[in-house]
Amino acid sequence: MKFATFLLDGKTKVGVVDESTATLRAVEDVSSVLDIISGKATVKPSGPAIALSQVKLLAPIPSPERNIFCVGKNYREHAKEFSNSGFEAGAVKGAEIDEYPAVFTKPASSVIGPDADVDLHPQATNSVDYEAELAIVIGKAGRDIPKDQAYNHIFGYTIINDVTSRDRQRNHKQWFLGKALDTFCPMGPWLVTGDELEPENLDVKCWVNNELRQNANTRDLIFDIPTLVSSISAGLTLVPGDIISTGTPAGVGIGFNPPKFLRAGDVVTISITGLGSLTNTFR
Amino acid sequence: MKFATFLLDGKTKVGVVDESTATLRAVEDVSSVLDIISGKATVKPSGPAIALSQVKLLAPIPSPERNIFCVGKNYREHAKEFSNSGFEAGAVKGAEIDEYPAVFTKPASSVIGPDADVDLHPQATNSVDYEAELAIVIGKAGRDIPKDQAYNHIFGYTIINDVTSRDRQRNHKQWFLGKALDTFCPMGPWLVTGDELEPENLDVKCWVNNELRQNANTRDLIFDIPTLVSSISAGLTLVPGDIISTGTPAGVGIGFNPPKFLRAGDVVTISITGLGSLTNTFR
Repeated sequence: MKFATFLLDGKTKVGVVDESTATLRAVEDVSSVLDIISGKATVKPSGPAIALSQVKLLAPIPSPERNIFCVGKNYREHAKEFSNSGFEAGAVKGAEIDEYPAVFTKPASSVIGPDADVDLHPQATNSVDYEAELAIVIGKAGRDIPKDQAYNHIFGYTIINDVTSRDRQRNHKQWFLGKALDTFCPMGPWLVTGDELEPENLDVKCWVNNELRQNANTRDLIFDIPTLVSSISAGLTLVPGDIISTGTPAGVGIGFNPPKFLRAGDVVTISITGLGSLTNTFR
Repeated sequence: MKFATFLLDGKTKVGVVDESTATLRAVEDVSSVLDIISGKATVKPSGPAIALSQVKLLAPIPSPERNIFCVGKNYREHAKEFSNSGFEAGAVKGAEIDEYPAVFTKPASSVIGPDADVDLHPQATNSVDYEAELAIVIGKAGRDIPKDQAYNHIFGYTIINDVTSRDRQRNHKQWFLGKALDTFCPMGPWLVTGDELEPENLDVKCWVNNELRQNANTRDLIFDIPTLVSSISAGLTLVPGDIISTGTPAGVGIGFNPPKFLRAGDVVTISITGLGSLTNTFR
């Protein structure tokens, strides 16, 4: 199933999406996908099918209950382009691939939905970049989750654009301040339950102004989904609604020489097999 | 004023502490300090003075609304001991002092109160360390806050022990996974409003089993409080209740050779001028 959060007549609602007809049907009395994930609400789509074009989609989880867990350097070619870009503090030639996943967070306040504008924050940075990523949404709480149990803790998947200020990422060494700016976490267009996907075989593509920049497959993750769930949950209780963004493939702006940073008016679209497309304009 | 959150007869309450008599008086109809910080509730202490020894103190903000912002390497001697310890990924000899503050987060789920036990998580780490820190609590929302306005956005201060798994901090390079384990953020004993303190002249002390390990003053912060508020709020809206932990001075376990990691039964006490003492046992 595909769950969307949307605005209709000024109210936030949850709907079940039918992609084949480009429609959704509202789920009665539910205003947060988190209530479905946690099992507090049951899924009873009611009423007429509404054209997706008639509603304003929000992020499927517009207000995550805590920061989003994000993974860095999780595709080989991207790890190399980042290390060679001059924007990785402490980069060591020949040691581009890490032995353990690098995990940082983005605050919930950075989340925006499909078609919302990303603020370039020119007062704070001059080097805004895109990162197309598969994001996992946790469905079942757990700590010290073994790899072979990881998929039992996953509810579904969505797309995240891990928008990054490269100068702040480099200068502050820890990546958080380069990743956390308001509007720097476009998410959507909806949340797709795990039964609809082969998460380890999804094409991840990203276009900037219709130019294909990123084109990879999740089978090339250095740290696969079970490894990420296991590493992050070591000593840290994951709860329903937690979001893990799995890292971006090669082709980001700093992969070019000179770097291609985003400018006002640029449009970034990310598409992942089975998850739809997420488009945002930078202003 | 000093605000404590405490349990009495199974209910969470907020109280105003009178340190001279070691008592508190409950604030009527308020169960969260966040409501006082945000101005939703007014402070009307009512009823009799209750001995602090008769209540169970919780962290002043037991469930922060988002991850705690934490600053690394913010005292010179600690920056050197950390860089020289072998536990800083990418450490460069002679470049121990950073040009910009390093900021990472700890999840709200890591927060515990005074006298609560810290879990050593032996299944996940063998190198647990303490870090005594002054923590700032934001009172007024703001983005791109200039340094000269920073104190207008601060409600008060408390103590945080930024408990750290050194092997996870080193292995995962980004520090989050070494900092985020359940129970790794003791906080308290209460929240003291800014008018009661000179935040840039506070002694910070930390004892392990009665042995004084850390002994410094906040005047030695590399990045002072206005710089931290300004750096973190660049492009990122701070909101009332946000917590910024300002970094730890020299004297942590990895400052010793060999390192002195915490073991089951160890008791860590942190004391900061005007903020009281925070004691936790490691199990």
